[in-house]
Amino acid sequence: MLEDLKQKVYDANMMLVKHNLVIFTWGNVSGKSDDGKYIAIKPSGVDYYKLRAEDIVILDTNGNIVEGNLNPSSDTPTHIELYKAFPSIKGVCHTHSNYATSFAQAGKAIEAFGTTHADYFYGDIPCTRTLTEEETISDYEKNTGKVIVETFNDIDYEQIPGVLVKQHGVFSWGNSPYKSVYNAVVMEELAKMNYQTLMLNDLNNLPQYTLDKHYLRKHGKNAYYGQKVSI
Amino acid sequence: MLEDLKQKVYDANMMLVKHNLVIFTWGNVSGKSDDGKYIAIKPSGVDYYKLRAEDIVILDTNGNIVEGNLNPSSDTPTHIELYKAFPSIKGVCHTHSNYATSFAQAGKAIEAFGTTHADYFYGDIPCTRTLTEEETISDYEKNTGKVIVETFNDIDYEQIPGVLVKQHGVFSWGNSPYKSVYNAVVMEELAKMNYQTLMLNDLNNLPQYTLDKHYLRKHGKNAYYGQKVSI
Amino acid sequence: MLEDLKQKVYDANMMLVKHNLVIFTWGNVSGKSDDGKYIAIKPSGVDYYKLRAEDIVILDTNGNIVEGNLNPSSDTPTHIELYKAFPSIKGVCHTHSNYATSFAQAGKAIEAFGTTHADYFYGDIPCTRTLTEEETISDYEKNTGKVIVETFNDIDYEQIPGVLVKQHGVFSWGNSPYKSVYNAVVMEELAKMNYQTLMLNDLNNLPQYTLDKHYLRKHGKNAYYGQKVSI
Amino acid sequence: MLEDLKQKVYDANMMLVKHNLVIFTWGNVSGKSDDGKYIAIKPSGVDYYKLRAEDIVILDTNGNIVEGNLNPSSDTPTHIELYKAFPSIKGVCHTHSNYATSFAQAGKAIEAFGTTHADYFYGDIPCTRTLTEEETISDYEKNTGKVIVETFNDIDYEQIPGVLVKQHGVFSWGNSPYKSVYNAVVMEELAKMNYQTLMLNDLNNLPQYTLDKHYLRKHGKNAYYGQKVSI
Repeated sequence: MLEDLKQKVYDANMMLVKHNLVIFTWGNVSGKSDDGKYIAIKPSGVDYYKLRAEDIVILDTNGNIVEGNLNPSSDTPTHIELYKAFPSIKGVCHTHSNYATSFAQAGKAIEAFGTTHADYFYGDIPCTRTLTEEETISDYEKNTGKVIVETFNDIDYEQIPGVLVKQHGVFSWGNSPYKSVYNAVVMEELAKMNYQTLMLNDLNNLPQYTLDKHYLRKHGKNAYYGQKVSI
Repeated sequence: MLEDLKQKVYDANMMLVKHNLVIFTWGNVSGKSDDGKYIAIKPSGVDYYKLRAEDIVILDTNGNIVEGNLNPSSDTPTHIELYKAFPSIKGVCHTHSNYATSFAQAGKAIEAFGTTHADYFYGDIPCTRTLTEEETISDYEKNTGKVIVETFNDIDYEQIPGVLVKQHGVFSWGNSPYKSVYNAVVMEELAKMNYQTLMLNDLNNLPQYTLDKHYLRKHGKNAYYGQKVSI
Repeated sequence: MLEDLKQKVYDANMMLVKHNLVIFTWGNVSGKSDDGKYIAIKPSGVDYYKLRAEDIVILDTNGNIVEGNLNPSSDTPTHIELYKAFPSIKGVCHTHSNYATSFAQAGKAIEAFGTTHADYFYGDIPCTRTLTEEETISDYEKNTGKVIVETFNDIDYEQIPGVLVKQHGVFSWGNSPYKSVYNAVVMEELAKMNYQTLMLNDLNNLPQYTLDKHYLRKHGKNAYYGQKVSI
Repeated sequence: MLEDLKQKVYDANMMLVKHNLVIFTWGNVSGKSDDGKYIAIKPSGVDYYKLRAEDIVILDTNGNIVEGNLNPSSDTPTHIELYKAFPSIKGVCHTHSNYATSFAQAGKAIEAFGTTHADYFYGDIPCTRTLTEEETISDYEKNTGKVIVETFNDIDYEQIPGVLVKQHGVFSWGNSPYKSVYNAVVMEELAKMNYQTLMLNDLNNLPQYTLDKHYLRKHGKNAYYGQKVSI
C-alpha cells in the first residue's frame, strides 16, 4: 500500500515539473494513505531530476518519520495542519508558480472573472493575512498552515481547493496527490488570465448564476460534464 | 466517410494541444460531414493524451448520438446552434486560450490593430453580451450558441470566423475542423499582440483601406496570396 | 551556386520557426546571389513543415521568376525595393513576431534602452509612417518597400538593420539570409525587453557614449568582441 | 585539475541555454580554480551550440591567457574585478536575461517582495549607478566591475549574490560556476514575479522577520532546509 502511495506522490511531484510550476528543488506534494494513518511527502531540497519514488518520506499524521532516510520537506508542518483541518483531502501541493505567486506577493485574491475559474473554484481564491512576527519566528511552517485554516473559517475547502499565502506562494489540495497538483495548474492558468484581464482594465465580476452553472455542471449530484464510465 | 470525419476531428482536437491552446480536457473541436447529416465531436471530459480517433462521438444535426459509447462534449448544443445558423461552416472549435479568454473576461472585442488581423478577420472580433440569469439556468449551452448568433446579426460569419463569449472563452469556425482550429490559433496570436499594443497605450485603429488590402489579398476572387496549385 | 543560395534561404526560413518568430505560413526570408543577379525567396503561402529547399523561388532583380514552379512570396516587391535601395545587403527577412509587431501596431519605435540594443543597433529602430490609401490600393507591397526606404533617408541601413512597418510587422536585413533572421530574432528580444521596461515606467534613454561603446566593440575596425579566427 | 574546471565552466555555460537565459553567443560564465590561481571563462563570441569544453580559456588572476587558442569573453575584466573584490566566490555569470534586464534598463532594484526572494537573497538586489562617459570610453569592462563593487560597499556580497548593471544586464556569482548560474536563474524568476507584482499595483515589502526566517532556514548554522547527507 505504501509503495503505491510513494509512487503516486512521486508522480504528482514530477507533474509539477511537466507543467512548469517549479524549477530546481522548489515546491512539494504530499499524499495521505487511504486508511488516514500515513502521509508521504517529497524530501527536502532534492532536485526533481534526481528524485526517485523510493526517496519519498513516510510520516505519521503528527509528522514523525516512519520510513525513509531523508528529511521531509521543510514545509511538512504546513501540510500536516491542512490534513488535520480539512478531513476529506488526500493530497496537498505547494508551489511558487509565477503568476499565482505574483498575486500572493501583491496580497490580492484571484477573483472569479470567468467560467474557467467557475469550472473548478466556486468563488474567489483567497489570500491569507500576513503572519505576525511571533508566528514567523517560531513554528513558522505550522503557523503557515494555521493561517490558511483561519482563512477558510467561512469558506468551504472542498469548493475552493487552494489558497494564496501572502508574500509567499500557493497551496492547493484535493482528493488525491494528482488532484492537488491539478488544482495548482488550474490556479496558475487562472492567475495568468486574471492578471491579463486586470491589465485590460474593464472588469465585471462573474454573476453568481454563471458561477453556479459552471461549477455545478462539473461538481455535485447534478453534474453532467464528463463520462459516467471511466476510460 | 465517417471514419475519415472522425480522424479529421481527432486531428483537429490534437492540434489544440500542439499549439498550447488547451490543457487537460479543456476545449473541443467538432466537424460536420460533407453531406451535412452528421456532426462529429470530442467526448466530454476526456484527457487529450488518452483521446483516440475512435472515441469521437457521431451525432445527428439535432445532437442525438448516432455512434459512440461516450458522452459528447457538454458544449455540443453550442456547436449545434452554430452549424444551424452558419450554413457554410464544417468545423467549430472552442478554447479557453489565455490571451483571448482574457479579452472575453474583460468583455472587450479584439479590435483590428494590424495587418496580421486583417489577413484573417475582416474587422473587429466581437465579444457577446452577458447571458441573462434565465438563459444561464436552463439550456445554458444552447443559449450560448444563440447569443453568438445574435452577435452576428449584422456581421458576416465567413469574414469574421470567431467570437469571444463574455466571461467565458473563444469559439471559432471554418470550412473544416482544421480551419476552425487554425482560426483559434490566429485569435490567440492576435489577442496577445492586441494586449501588448493596448499596454503600449498609443493606438490607431487600422484604416479601412489597409483592412481591405490585406483581407482581400488572401480572400475572394482577386486574392493573390499563396499558390494556384496545391503542394 | 544557386543550389547553395536556395539552401541558405531555406535554412534561414526554417530558423524563423526554430526561434518561434512565425507560425503556419507567416513570414519569409530572401537572399541575393553573390554576383547580385538573383534573388531567392520563400514561395507564397507554403507551410514551413512542408517547405523544401527545392521549393525556394529564384527571381531576377526585378522580381521576374527565373526558376521554380511556385509563386514567390506576395511580399516579394518589398524585398526587391530593399535590395535596390540598400546595395550591401544579401538577405531580407519579414516576420509578424509578437512583441515587435505590437510596437509596429502602436506606431512606436524600439528605442535604445540598453546595451543589448547597442550591441546590434546603433540607435532607435524606427517605425514607418502609415501608407496612404493610394499607396495601399495599388502596388501595395512595392510601396511598403518605398516607405521603408523613405524612413531610412537619414538613417544608415547598415547600422540600423531593421524597421517596424506601421500597423504591419517587421522587416530586417543583413549581409546574408542568416544574418537577416538573426537581426529579426534580436529585434523580438529587444522589443520584449523594451515593452517590459516601458511598463516599469522609469526610463532613461541610453547615453550616446554607451551606445558608441557597445556598438563599436562589436562593429567596425576597432571591434574587439569575438575571435580573429573562425571556429 | 584544470580539465575539471574547464568542464565545470562549460557545463555552467550550457546551463544558461537550458534555462533560456541566453541566445546565440550572449552571456558568459567563468570559474576560479580551487587554489585561486586560475580563472576559466567562455571564449568571446562563440555560439553555444558550437562550444566545447576544450574551448574554455584559462587565464591567470590578472586576465593573462595561460591556456587556449581563443580570445576570452570581452567581459573578462568585469569577472576579474569581481574575483578580486569578492574573495570567497568561485564562479561568475553574466546574462541579458529578459525580465532582469528590463529592471536594469529601468534602473530599478529587484525588491524583496516575497519568500521566493528571501530564500536566496537577503534583501533587495541592487542596480548600479550609470557609468560616466569617462568610465565608458576607456577600460569599460573593468569599470563595469568597479561600479558593481562600489554598489556593494555596504552590502554583503555573499548574502546578495547578484546585481543589475544599469541599462546593461545581470551579473551573479556563487561558490561555484554552477551556483553563479543558479543565482542568475533565480534572479530571472524573481524579476518576472516582481514585474507582475508591480503591475498588480498593491505592494507591501516583505517584513524583515519574514526575510530573516526564509533566508536563515536555508543559510547559516541554523538552516534546516535540505539534507544533512548528500544524495
